[in-house]
Order: sequence, then C-alpha cells, then structure tokens
Amino acid sequence: MSSESLKQEALRLAKRAKTAARALAPLSSEEKNHALRLMAERIEAQSTYLLDQNGKDLEAAEQGGISGAILDRIALNPSRVRSMAKGLREIAALPDPVHEIVKMWRRPNGLQVGRMRIPLGVIGIIYEARPNVTADAAALCLKSGNAVILRGGSEAHCSNQAIAAILRQACAETSVPDEAIQVVQSKDHALVQELLQLEDYIDLVIPRGGEELIRAVVANSRIPVIKHYKGVCHVYVDADVSYEMAERICLNAKIQRPSVCNAMETLLVHQAIAANFLPVLAAKYQAAGVELRGCDRTCALIPGIKRATEADWSTEYLDLILSVRIVNDMNEAIDHIERYGSEHTETIVTSNYQRSREFVDRVNSSAVMVNASTRFNDGGELGLGAEIGISTSKIHAFGPMGLEELTTTKFVVFGDGQIRE
Amino acid sequence: MSSESLKQEALRLAKRAKTAARALAPLSSEEKNHALRLMAERIEAQSTYLLDQNGKDLEAAEQGGISGAILDRIALNPSRVRSMAKGLREIAALPDPVHEIVKMWRRPNGLQVGRMRIPLGVIGIIYEARPNVTADAAALCLKSGNAVILRGGSEAHCSNQAIAAILRQACAETSVPDEAIQVVQSKDHALVQELLQLEDYIDLVIPRGGEELIRAVVANSRIPVIKHYKGVCHVYVDADVSYEMAERICLNAKIQRPSVCNAMETLLVHQAIAANFLPVLAAKYQAAGVELRGCDRTCALIPGIKRATEADWSTEYLDLILSVRIVNDMNEAIDHIERYGSEHTETIVTSNYQRSREFVDRVNSSAVMVNASTRFNDGGELGLGAEIGISTSKIHAFGPMGLEELTTTKFVVFGDGQIRE
Repeated sequence: MSSESLKQEALRLAKRAKTAARALAPLSSEEKNHALRLMAERIEAQSTYLLDQNGKDLEAAEQGGISGAILDRIALNPSRVRSMAKGLREIAALPDPVHEIVKMWRRPNGLQVGRMRIPLGVIGIIYEARPNVTADAAALCLKSGNAVILRGGSEAHCSNQAIAAILRQACAETSVPDEAIQVVQSKDHALVQELLQLEDYIDLVIPRGGEELIRAVVANSRIPVIKHYKGVCHVYVDADVSYEMAERICLNAKIQRPSVCNAMETLLVHQAIAANFLPVLAAKYQAAGVELRGCDRTCALIPGIKRATEADWSTEYLDLILSVRIVNDMNEAIDHIERYGSEHTETIVTSNYQRSREFVDRVNSSAVMVNASTRFNDGGELGLGAEIGISTSKIHAFGPMGLEELTTTKFVVFGDGQIRE
Repeated sequence: MSSESLKQEALRLAKRAKTAARALAPLSSEEKNHALRLMAERIEAQSTYLLDQNGKDLEAAEQGGISGAILDRIALNPSRVRSMAKGLREIAALPDPVHEIVKMWRRPNGLQVGRMRIPLGVIGIIYEARPNVTADAAALCLKSGNAVILRGGSEAHCSNQAIAAILRQACAETSVPDEAIQVVQSKDHALVQELLQLEDYIDLVIPRGGEELIRAVVANSRIPVIKHYKGVCHVYVDADVSYEMAERICLNAKIQRPSVCNAMETLLVHQAIAANFLPVLAAKYQAAGVELRGCDRTCALIPGIKRATEADWSTEYLDLILSVRIVNDMNEAIDHIERYGSEHTETIVTSNYQRSREFVDRVNSSAVMVNASTRFNDGGELGLGAEIGISTSKIHAFGPMGLEELTTTKFVVFGDGQIRE
C-alpha cells in the first residue's frame, strides 16, 4: 500500500472505532454480557474453523524457521479454544465498572458533585504471538465499554483474523456494535505508525510484548501509552524475621515461575542474619538449580558462587539466576531498590511493625508487599478479576490493570438552577 | 548552546528533579506545609526584589512591542505578590492526598490488598505569560509530593527566575529538597524538546497555553501529556423546564465570563418550547451585547440574526457570541454535542427525572450537569481546593485537576507469609 492509502486505512479504522465507542458506552451491563456469552458460544461452535486457520499460521511459521517456544505460543488446540471461551464467560461474570459513582459530595451552594466512571473510548492494543489475546483483550475492552483496535503479531495473522471475525459476527446479533472490535488487516508496520498519530480518535495504546516493541511505540505515539518495560523485583529479608517464612517466600518468589515479570531477580539480606540465613537458603537454591551471583560479602559466605557484576543488579534474568546482596540495614536496601529497581514489585520480610510501615511508605513500586511472595503482583491474585496488562508508568494505572483501569471518570453535577456570581 | 550541550543540560535538570522527587515523596504533610508557609513568607518579604525583576520583563516586553493584554498578564504589583503568597498558604491548608489508602480488601488466602496514593514523581509544566503560575504550580506539585520542572514564557523570564529562586531558598531551610523545584534557565525551545524525550526521568507533562503550544508538545513528547485543547460547551434546554431557571442558567453560562473555556458556546433548545422561550431570551442576550447566530428555525423565530455556518457549531468563540439551534428532541441534542463538542462541559436544563438521568449517563464530557451553569466546571467550584489545569484527555485525569490528580496509586499488600501454589 502507498503511504497515503495506509494513512486513509488507519483513519478509516479509527473513525469506525470511535463511532462504535459512542454507541457502546451507554449500553447496560446485561447487553454487554449477553454479547460476551454469545461470543463464547460461537468460539466453541467454530472450533474446527479456528484450528484450521491456526494451522495455516503454524505451517507458515514452520516454513519461516520459527522455533519451538514461539511456535507453542501461536498454537491453538481444542483445550486452548475451550479456555478462550471460558475466559469470555468469566469476563461476562465480572462486575461492570461503567456508571459507578466513585465519590459524591455536596458544595456549600447545594450543588451535588460526583465522579462517574466512563469508558476511555477507543483503545489500541499491539501484541505479539498469542492468539488468545485477541479474544481476551476484545472482551475486556467491550465489558468496560471501550471500542478496540487490535493489531496482533503477523505470525498469528490467520488465527487473529478468524477469532475477530467470530467475535464480530456474534456482536452483530446483539445490541453491541460489531464495529467496536476493529482488527488491523495489513501486516505493514507503517499502518501502526499511522494509527499512533490519531490522538483525536484513539484514547490509549497498550503494547504487549518485549521492551523493544514498547519503546518503539512510545517513541512514535501521540497517544498516551501504557508502558511495561521490565520487572527487576526485590525481596528484602530484614533482621527481625522468621527464617522459615523468609525462606518460603524467597524460594517461591524465585523458583515457582522464573520466566515472568513478577519473579524475584535480586535478594537483599540484612547483615545481622546473613551468616545464619544465607548458607542454608543457598543450598536449597542450588539444589533447585538456581545459579547465584553474590556481592563480596555473599561470596565470602557461600564459596564457589559467581561474583555479581554491576550489570547484574539491574538485569531481569527471567531465568533460574538470582543476584544476592548483603546490606547493612533497610536504608541500604531501599537505596539499592531505588537505584537498580524497575518500580515493579518489592517485598519486605520482617516481623518488625515499624519497618513494615516504613518500607511500604517509602518504596514507590507498583506493588509493595509485606511478608508475601512477589509472585502475587498479578490482576487475578490481587482480586481485579482479570488483567489486560501491567503498567509501570506512574500515570492513570500503575500495576496490574483490570476493568477499572480501562475507565476514567467524568464529573457529574446535580443542581437546582445554580449560577456563578 | 550546541545541541549536545542542550541535551546534557536537559538531562542534568531531569536527573536532579528525579533525585529530589525520591527525597520529597516520603515527607510528612507537616514538613511540606512548613516549607509552603515559609515560601509564602519569603515571597512577601522579597516583594521589592520581585517587582524589580518583573520591571525588567515589562521593559523588555514594551521594547519588543508587546501589547496591552499580554503586558497585563506579565505585570506584578504589590497586590498580585500578596495574592501569590496567599495562594501558597491556601495550598498548605489543603488536605494532603499522599499516603491515603483509597480502597482495601481481603483475598481468600488472607492477603490484605489496598491502593495507596503516591506522587507521580517528576512533573514538567510548560506555560506562557503569567508569572504567578510559577508559584502556584510549584506549590501544588510540592504539596502532592512531586518534583517539578518549570518552563515559563520567555516574556516573564526574569520574574519566573526570581520567584523560583525565592521558593528554592525557602525550601533549603527545611526538609524539602530545594532541587524539587527546577527551573529551565535557557530560553531555547530546543531544550524543551530535549526534556520531552526523557521518559525515564519525567512522569507527566502539563502544557498550559493555547492549542498550538499543546499540539506541539503532544507531537514531540515521549512522556504522557495532559491535553486541554478547547471548550465548546453546550446548554440543552429541554421541553419540560422552568423558563425562569433555564433563562438564568443560559444567561450566566454565556455572559458571566465569556472569555473562559467553561463558558457556553452553543445553546440547544427543544422545539416544543422554542417559540415561547427563545425570543424573550434573545432580547436579553441582545441587550447584554451578545451576538446570536442561529439555525434556520432559530432565524425564523428571531428576525435579523446571523445564520450560523457549519464552522460556527465547532467554534470556541471565547467572546459575546452564541450559536443557537432548535432540536427535535434530546437525542438530536446529544447527537449535536457528540458531533461538534469538545468533551468539556455540557448542561441539561430540565424538570424531567428520566431525561436528566439519561443525559448524565449518555454524555461523556469531562463535566455533565443538570440544572447548573457550565461555569461551575472549575477545580475551586467543584470542591477540589485548587486546580493545576483541566484535562480533556480521557486518561488519568479528565476535567479539572486538583492535588489528587497529581498522584497515582500503588498496590500495598500485607501478608503473613503467603506464597503462590
């Protein structure tokens, strides 16, 4: 496509989405839930067609020499299709944030003033391999009253188009406008660049993928972007502590699922307990296949481990590797977190009341925890019901984003004829 | 300055601000209020110096041929200096949003999860002529725990530098870091461009000024920008209505201060009452010097007025001009608002319960009102205490922004050793 026709195509998509957003915003929860349940039914009913289209993507990927892990992300199977439908039904069952009045007060002149939740409008989602994101993201946006423009990875092109077509067909039978789900057809990256200029039509962009993808979107967008660069998460084990609890949390935060952003990457241990606590823990880590990289003092306590380099302290390993540092006190731990952390998730393990409060007040990461595994920083685990992403931008949403984070509030004002003097 | 040294200068400013933001965030309300009160004292004590520096700006402006209205905006006098100090004391007296827990719940596994308000971090403010914005913006940012980078208009350069120097000197005597208030010294616009790239240091940008300034900032920023393009505000007078109340609101919304963004620009009137209501109101408007521009039906009712063009419906006059349209029903009024409005402020005047609810639910402007003048869409009038700006971006903050809108929330999690299974 020529650059002019790409521009036209982007504008066409965005205008359709904006028109649909206006029709979608005032719908009742029941109207939206009905569409979501019908979408689930149709996804199940058309499982064969979906797997067929997915097969085309897999074939093309194999021919393109795409490797096992990515191939697995692209692949659908009957159980994955069922869980896509299940996800849609779960979103239908969640409470609807739209029209909630979050606060209301009365002014001296009698005006009653409140804030009412409303959809953001049109949300652009740019994502990579997994085709289930197409259904999840469309459903979360629909439930929160937003139109969505989906741009999935080109490796899952046929799967994404097929899923979106089924969702739109289901919508067309309900009061939800099918145009509320827009899918980018072109594989041309230049179209995404054009979409990112359309600040008058698109309200928020959520890129889901690697740091490179996110930085490229931020660099080119006139529209606010929810960023999530990386998670260099810390556990700080304080001087006053139950060794048993500290050990349990440290092992869970690193080992339970090392490949995700809320896994611990650096362990900070108070010097007063290091000699008793660390060698026992280190043995358990090593037995579980975790490679340790320590500061000088840690290396002296645990012979044979690697010395951590300056780069290690700010590395998100996403693997069975852990950097370990002994600190003089909590202040040094917090300094370390501020210097090397990514404002994602930090935990203190302590039995000291005052330090638990101070840690929570002073550390401004998206989730700050006391005596709990960093792995709980997740929309489902925190009770948000569902998660469209996680934000490390300190704006609008900070941390896991559920349905509420896909809304903003407007002021509502009820008067009896008041005017300004 | 060379482009490389501008880049260095921007980075130096931003790094200092970020370091100061970390020191400022955990301070108690009393520590911040003490600094604000000291700032007020010093502004008053150094009034002569301030007026002196302001005189330099005025002289340069006059020599540069700057006109009366802008000259008036730049000018300080003893009473304006006093009201600057008064503003600082008022901000000290407001409740502190930082550390407020806005919600808290318990998960089935016993984890207690909440959201705690925290400062955004570093806020960049780009503004035009008025030097009092330097004190106001610095104080609102400081109170909400944020460091600020101020870039005022070059016409008020000496005044802004002098105000900021006094504020910083006051901070230096308290526990608030003076580096929390950063002022751009260079008049070079290229420095602003460099600042707008520093997404790792600056969390939010608030441009205050004309649409051109704001669009230029949005086009160049990697940092989220609070936009406020324009206010094309509507009053819709319904069929069921007290003529007396409708007239009062219509006159106030247009005439009380026509030059501001929350003044009405278009009046929509239900056809059922137009013949009785409009001619009487029109005579009052004309007596007050308001020029009317009507749709065909309006022109038929009120002979001699101008015909509104298509462009009129989306024009922000900021003047004693009003476009008037007769609509068949509320649906047509809402369609008109969606098509031509700017999502700023809309009012319905009605005595009908059902339509009041429907209007409030369906119109998604930053403030939607029933039976009240559009002029109430203002931080002070809505009870926010103070206002740093008004947002027509549907993200983070929508509508007037007070102290709360300069914060975000982090998740806080209190556990007893919970891990993920």
